[in-house]
Amino acid sequence: MNKPTSQSEFETPKVTTGALPASRKVYTHPKADPSLAVPRREIDLHPTANEPPVPVYDTSGPYSDPNVEINVEKGLARIRTEWVKERGGVVEYDGREVKPEDNGGATGKYLAREFPTHNKPLRAADFDPTFKSGTTTSDRAGAAEAGGQTNKTRILGTNTNDRAGAGDPNSAAGGNITEQKQKTPRAPITQYEHAVQGIITNEMIYVAERENLGRQEALENAAETVAQGESFGADIPEFITPEFVRDEIAKGRAIIPANINHPELEPQIIGRNFLVKINANIGNSAVASSVEEEVEKMVWATRWGADNVMDLSTGRNIHNTREWIIRNSPVPIGTVPIYQALEKVDGIAENLTWEVYRDTLIEQAEQGVDYFTIHAGVRLAYIHLTANRVTGIVSRGGSIMAKWMLAHHKESFLYTHFEEICEIMRAYDVSFSLGDGLRPGSIADANDRAQFAELETLGELTKIAHAHGCQVMIEGPGHVPMHKIKINMDKQLRECGEAPFYTLGPLTTDIAPGYDHITSGIGAAMIGWYGTAMLCYVTPKEHLGLPDRDDVKVGVITYRLAAHAADLAKGHPAAQVRDDALSRARFEFRWEDQFNLALDPETARDFHDQTLPKEAHKVAHFCSMCGPKFCSMKITAEVRDYAANMTDNEKKALNLEAEKGMKQMSEKYAEMGSELYLAEDGSKREAID
Amino acid sequence: MNKPTSQSEFETPKVTTGALPASRKVYTHPKADPSLAVPRREIDLHPTANEPPVPVYDTSGPYSDPNVEINVEKGLARIRTEWVKERGGVVEYDGREVKPEDNGGATGKYLAREFPTHNKPLRAADFDPTFKSGTTTSDRAGAAEAGGQTNKTRILGTNTNDRAGAGDPNSAAGGNITEQKQKTPRAPITQYEHAVQGIITNEMIYVAERENLGRQEALENAAETVAQGESFGADIPEFITPEFVRDEIAKGRAIIPANINHPELEPQIIGRNFLVKINANIGNSAVASSVEEEVEKMVWATRWGADNVMDLSTGRNIHNTREWIIRNSPVPIGTVPIYQALEKVDGIAENLTWEVYRDTLIEQAEQGVDYFTIHAGVRLAYIHLTANRVTGIVSRGGSIMAKWMLAHHKESFLYTHFEEICEIMRAYDVSFSLGDGLRPGSIADANDRAQFAELETLGELTKIAHAHGCQVMIEGPGHVPMHKIKINMDKQLRECGEAPFYTLGPLTTDIAPGYDHITSGIGAAMIGWYGTAMLCYVTPKEHLGLPDRDDVKVGVITYRLAAHAADLAKGHPAAQVRDDALSRARFEFRWEDQFNLALDPETARDFHDQTLPKEAHKVAHFCSMCGPKFCSMKITAEVRDYAANMTDNEKKALNLEAEKGMKQMSEKYAEMGSELYLAEDGSKREAID
Repeated sequence: MNKPTSQSEFETPKVTTGALPASRKVYTHPKADPSLAVPRREIDLHPTANEPPVPVYDTSGPYSDPNVEINVEKGLARIRTEWVKERGGVVEYDGREVKPEDNGGATGKYLAREFPTHNKPLRAADFDPTFKSGTTTSDRAGAAEAGGQTNKTRILGTNTNDRAGAGDPNSAAGGNITEQKQKTPRAPITQYEHAVQGIITNEMIYVAERENLGRQEALENAAETVAQGESFGADIPEFITPEFVRDEIAKGRAIIPANINHPELEPQIIGRNFLVKINANIGNSAVASSVEEEVEKMVWATRWGADNVMDLSTGRNIHNTREWIIRNSPVPIGTVPIYQALEKVDGIAENLTWEVYRDTLIEQAEQGVDYFTIHAGVRLAYIHLTANRVTGIVSRGGSIMAKWMLAHHKESFLYTHFEEICEIMRAYDVSFSLGDGLRPGSIADANDRAQFAELETLGELTKIAHAHGCQVMIEGPGHVPMHKIKINMDKQLRECGEAPFYTLGPLTTDIAPGYDHITSGIGAAMIGWYGTAMLCYVTPKEHLGLPDRDDVKVGVITYRLAAHAADLAKGHPAAQVRDDALSRARFEFRWEDQFNLALDPETARDFHDQTLPKEAHKVAHFCSMCGPKFCSMKITAEVRDYAANMTDNEKKALNLEAEKGMKQMSEKYAEMGSELYLAEDGSKREAID
Repeated sequence: MNKPTSQSEFETPKVTTGALPASRKVYTHPKADPSLAVPRREIDLHPTANEPPVPVYDTSGPYSDPNVEINVEKGLARIRTEWVKERGGVVEYDGREVKPEDNGGATGKYLAREFPTHNKPLRAADFDPTFKSGTTTSDRAGAAEAGGQTNKTRILGTNTNDRAGAGDPNSAAGGNITEQKQKTPRAPITQYEHAVQGIITNEMIYVAERENLGRQEALENAAETVAQGESFGADIPEFITPEFVRDEIAKGRAIIPANINHPELEPQIIGRNFLVKINANIGNSAVASSVEEEVEKMVWATRWGADNVMDLSTGRNIHNTREWIIRNSPVPIGTVPIYQALEKVDGIAENLTWEVYRDTLIEQAEQGVDYFTIHAGVRLAYIHLTANRVTGIVSRGGSIMAKWMLAHHKESFLYTHFEEICEIMRAYDVSFSLGDGLRPGSIADANDRAQFAELETLGELTKIAHAHGCQVMIEGPGHVPMHKIKINMDKQLRECGEAPFYTLGPLTTDIAPGYDHITSGIGAAMIGWYGTAMLCYVTPKEHLGLPDRDDVKVGVITYRLAAHAADLAKGHPAAQVRDDALSRARFEFRWEDQFNLALDPETARDFHDQTLPKEAHKVAHFCSMCGPKFCSMKITAEVRDYAANMTDNEKKALNLEAEKGMKQMSEKYAEMGSELYLAEDGSKREAID
């Protein structure tokens, strides 16, 4: 419960470091820019396997690299600052003063220590901090020219032939964009603006390399794998080029959440034509948990595979906790700014104002939050649509705004000030995660009018945000029975112009509290297959309590496996590499390789040891299920040797005999059928053919 | 490890008894036969809910009924013996002598004590124990007449007007069957034979009542629920009558596994137009576990929702362990007889013979095993199809038979003697579970030619087994990526004439050992939705070790929730009753009701207590996620009161305003779109509409 942390008592967060079993951190250098170092993990196999190491996507950052010295007091290396400055269009400035209310008024021994280093924030040079509602679009377009186009940006087809080579240099679309958009564009700040202007950023090159992981190895049958998959209209390439990344971002179909003030992060792409990503939620609340715990939760979650992390803190010390998290985070960090804004008005929703909210956006943008959940689609007119729901409004953000709107009988300030929000977020390249404040909180409420009315508004807002140059993804439900899941995906793609979908589960039944990582893992795998780009994890504690370290791990692994199941089903060319390596290890009784290739090597090993703890059993050619005399894998290995030695003639003869036997059976059946009593159902059974 | 159990040391199994939290065992009496008492569980809610108790399907048998005295030494009450004898056509006989090899040669202190009571087995009066391969069908048809039709059987439309009333007395099909089939039928023994002859058994009345559970309460909107569901061509009725049950069984689309020598069981139906069932596996192996553990595992698994249990024991004491299990089991028990047959030939597959196998079938049929997994579809001609697989043959039964066939270079004796097997199983009403010995053991091997060749053979065998009067279900995979799951279901329905499908998962990825209850729970929910009638559970220990008590529970709950998710998606009229009750409890902060309505009340309560242990928090109107000041549910309750008081005019005005706002936004977007840089992607985004 609410552990106080004072300046003196404050302990530097202790985080988990070290390589995963049999794993090495490998950095590769993209052809398009060999100065970039893109991480992946390689799992070494036992020499008897006679197989190359298995490459896997690595979200764990430098913490799993034994060659990097981790110092949480200093934070991670700020590699991207140089990239951002080189691109130009930004200015360094003093930034907003930290106010007592940013930390919920915590003082003295209750105030968590500030992160030791303060970096001046960057923002778009053309950003007008006095921006008022009513400023017209053309005013802003005029201001954009002041920012200008620096000669450090790389424009496809002009000064970046080296990089264009990595993509498709003949891309007519690329060329056209450049020509078309040079008319009046502002200096590009966001990844979206760069993409639309035909510019391939370092981040794009980085994520292309990162996504391809193992794809080169799998490339031989990539076309076949893609063709055999069912991607429901997605456009999964055999190989990912930086130009493909740029094009997907320009189309609004993918985002790289990367605040220019979070230079510590390893860029990552979210979109339906890329690997399915997962998110873990952390955050202290008024009731429990501390700064140290939250930083370690972030490190811990990414160690097991969280592609990014949302800090959902409420209560005290929100600002300082977040600073520690971001400075040490190799993955994008998302927040729901309304939570902190509410803290600043002592938890009284009616007292929220646009000014408090706006100030909070800037506070968090300066810190480096990579995406904001903004529930701007919860409109006054939709609230009464929730009145007859079984579970009303379950989104915290949604219910806060609903309460505010009803108290003032006014439209949501998130909606009326949406364009100002866009300008702020564009100035730092904070991505939108347009929140689903009216998502269903129960099976009974799934796919109702309230939910879909909001989704339609989110579609409108997506266009506005894109027009302002922002990156956008859309949040989705929630609680949805299996037969109603695809409807959500299809509608989202249609309404939101294929902007990436980011769903919470969905939970496919309400009756299993304590197991909602599983009720939702089912829905997550399915909607990921249908096209959702990122899955927000659910832990076993959902609906019941705050997840601890073990719960976070179980939630992450569950969502990792759901995302992977989706990648397999979509036909991702390299996804099956790991499944096949693990299956071969299983077949060949390479127990150590099985553990090491598993998403959770520790648990796999532990479970094995509970039954057969002896070290010798790790090399035994049997397992506890069947015992030494009676092992199907062992028998099969013998069968395989035998079968492999058959001649083609023998195989042919066998098949003929099988056909003959089947024919005899059929004849006997026909004979018996008329003698006995099959007449009635015979016809009906054939009817479904 | 292999605990020895001697006659003197043997401990009577201690089993878990007592009601689940807030639950009462209720027995209802079907209109068609009020003498039958059909159990269900009712969960009482807090008085403030002002709601009736929630009825749920109850698999736990008398163990959860405080009014029944449990004595494991005596076994459960043998209620069905009377039903079977009343129907006639059966004889009591001395039965086979128990041989030392039935218990794997265990003697002295290693031999588990026999179950104290010995009951003489029943079998079909017309069964010919000297049956030899080559006896023709017509010979057997002649023998059938000797058995005759007793006047105790109830034939639809003749002496059972009372019962016919429960079904559809005008059913033309029913009437026709009776007339058509009376030509030369044998005295019906199996549920299938009764159904085909138009006879509604006690078991059919029992399962109709059992399945309807809560359906009367949900009946008001049953038609709507069924219509909104997606059942992929299944035929889910709004209300289940005994006649519907009979008809489904006669069509081969459902089975009631109920050996006439397992009179202790509470009948249950498996078919795609009924609630999805789940199965738990237990069984000692050569390496670990004891009689006591296995009996308790059965009781424990059914307590948490296992509809039936497979005893997969190997090693010593198989016979005696099984006897203890069956005599105390309220659910159907399945086995894989080849496992025990292999023990009898010291684990050397080549030494198996038809005679040893046949003797084992009779041994187990006399004990009361309700269904046998028989891998008769693994044919000699299919073995070489597995040679290039990543994981070969992973089914134990399949690999044993493959080894036997290759050693002898002969067709499988399970295939060549299939009709004799049918006659034995028909004589006791042991249901077929036609095993998928060539199921894929990895994602790489899914849906390959070996798998589907076997499935086609299983389709042929289904017809033969039906012709012999047997009940049949079909086993399915295994390891299958999501996009290949529905292909399995569709092919099974087509090849096997809609006989119930019984699948193991399938696992949707291979990379998460330790979490395969989840990788498979995803596939199980999906294939259950598509039409699988029973899901074979997978525990977290799958591939790694033997499940302990906790693993069994986690496996059962996971599959229970997957099956329920499938029932919801199929549009089962009463399935959502429990979801809605739990969601209302959640919304109204009735914490105790949430726990009690959960599939696993203990875990739900425990998880809550880990964060908020105080008893007072159980009535608090907040939870640990948000804390007292900041609760979305609480805010929503206020919103709801407010919205409920709006007039229709106010709602209308709001909607108009919303439309206006949206229009303004759209106009602004259009304006900006042409000014800024949206030209290129605008068109493409619309293209997916």
